[in-house]
Amino acid sequence: MAITVVGSVAFDTVETPAGRRERMLAGAATYFSLAASYFTKVRVIAVVGEDFSSRQEAVFQARGIDTSGIERAPGKSFFWSGSYLDNLNEAKTLQTDLNVFANFEPKIPAGYQDSEFLFLANIDPVLQKKVRDAMPSVKLVCGDTMNYWINDHRDNLLQVLKGLDVLLINDTEAKLLSGIKNPVKAAQDVLGLGPKALVVKHGEYGATAFFGRSIFHDGAKTPHHPFRAPALPVSEVVDPTGAGDSFAGGFFGYIASQPELTPAVFRRAMFYGGVMGSFTVEKFGTERLQELTRDEIEERFALFRELTHLD
Amino acid sequence: MAITVVGSVAFDTVETPAGRRERMLAGAATYFSLAASYFTKVRVIAVVGEDFSSRQEAVFQARGIDTSGIERAPGKSFFWSGSYLDNLNEAKTLQTDLNVFANFEPKIPAGYQDSEFLFLANIDPVLQKKVRDAMPSVKLVCGDTMNYWINDHRDNLLQVLKGLDVLLINDTEAKLLSGIKNPVKAAQDVLGLGPKALVVKHGEYGATAFFGRSIFHDGAKTPHHPFRAPALPVSEVVDPTGAGDSFAGGFFGYIASQPELTPAVFRRAMFYGGVMGSFTVEKFGTERLQELTRDEIEERFALFRELTHLD
Repeated sequence: MAITVVGSVAFDTVETPAGRRERMLAGAATYFSLAASYFTKVRVIAVVGEDFSSRQEAVFQARGIDTSGIERAPGKSFFWSGSYLDNLNEAKTLQTDLNVFANFEPKIPAGYQDSEFLFLANIDPVLQKKVRDAMPSVKLVCGDTMNYWINDHRDNLLQVLKGLDVLLINDTEAKLLSGIKNPVKAAQDVLGLGPKALVVKHGEYGATAFFGRSIFHDGAKTPHHPFRAPALPVSEVVDPTGAGDSFAGGFFGYIASQPELTPAVFRRAMFYGGVMGSFTVEKFGTERLQELTRDEIEERFALFRELTHLD
Repeated sequence: MAITVVGSVAFDTVETPAGRRERMLAGAATYFSLAASYFTKVRVIAVVGEDFSSRQEAVFQARGIDTSGIERAPGKSFFWSGSYLDNLNEAKTLQTDLNVFANFEPKIPAGYQDSEFLFLANIDPVLQKKVRDAMPSVKLVCGDTMNYWINDHRDNLLQVLKGLDVLLINDTEAKLLSGIKNPVKAAQDVLGLGPKALVVKHGEYGATAFFGRSIFHDGAKTPHHPFRAPALPVSEVVDPTGAGDSFAGGFFGYIASQPELTPAVFRRAMFYGGVMGSFTVEKFGTERLQELTRDEIEERFALFRELTHLD
């Protein structure tokens, strides 16, 4: 079943201990779409500038991703530049140019309306809400956000959280959103803001899911205790950019590929999220995500299982 | 089969967001012994002062721990005072009085010599090595250390590492010992210093085992990839002191209770380590470790399994 994703399609310049790359195809919606495309049909809503050429378009096409919702606007695409030279776990932002994103008004192609899944990538919560409201018939909505929106656009963000089935954020964002240091209490507080389930990403340590109201197909009581999925200990992180969005793509893509959302599907989805994130960091930008095979994905899924399972 | 442990038996004064406790029975060897005592016979080598009374002695007796190797010396026991008010994950040391520990010369009772397992808790590596050399017939040696010994007593520590089967340290210590930031490369480097296996503790995120030369009973090839055990997300950490030593006690205690060391036993031992650590932080000092039942331990083991297993 199809996922519609709204978010940034952008160019990134990145420097890491492994090297430097200029103006790579990037953006949350790009990483998400590529990762999810190995599991299900994906449709993108975004805006790009005149610098987005057939070369970038071809990356989406090669993965069968629907780009009819990517609007072309006069000017330049969203641009971000960051450095991981000091800390591979956190980028230092060197430059952010919103460009055409500054006046982005999401338009949803008619052909997207039968999407059953909606992913609201990390953008202005006002835009997230507009897209959510314009797609009333989706059956599962998953969203992301970041410190900037939590700090400076809190009221708008709270409106979005009310309508979410699953919120995906990291440890720092969970603390910031709740004002609570203890991770379990912070999760309970965030679940009180609306999301039925919360997935907290821990970077190199994996991710933990916390459950509030049931999101499961059979209305079964949500398991009261959390679920923790691993990350793969990797000997060389080439470029950490997009790992979180790739996690989201693997996670939500797998869910969308299954006939029902059960606790077992949710657990496997968390594993697939970690798997897709682990591929992304192996090369610069979306390089690794462009060239995967489903066999490689299943192989790594088995590795994740062996990494954490008793027998 | 019996474990001999050498390390500190001490008194701690601790303040945490949950309160303050004065001069509790503590020390690495104490936490280790209590945790391991739920799995196997434990024998302690340590030194205490005149402030160590029958009340403290009774805590060991109640768990069937052999204290004939706890020497009584004139003066006061090792004392540590710390605060977790700013950061529950890392203590701020307020006071350390070595007292009788300053002149500690470990003496090994004859009755300890048939121990098949030896745990070298976090003390001066010179003492660790003395005890190791004095017990040549043990079949598995596991050890701990800390920043202070890594930084200022490196040569002595390197001598100890050469004779270790398993080294248990945390992320920071692994980086410090190897001088390498990447956790996988750091682990490989540390394994090159001698230990056949390395368990790196990640605090609230669990622990990862890395394998070098085989330590397994059947000489089977060591699995080339690591194993990751979870920690339980807990809603209230009352006192984090001793969590790492309790992990070591559960880990090594379980191994000592099994007829053979196989990869499956090693994995379950990592889970039991996490289980014992999760109990310790629920109350102040060793309170929780004194009152456990094996049923409670098995129940939590099942919870850890459910927390991380796909089905």
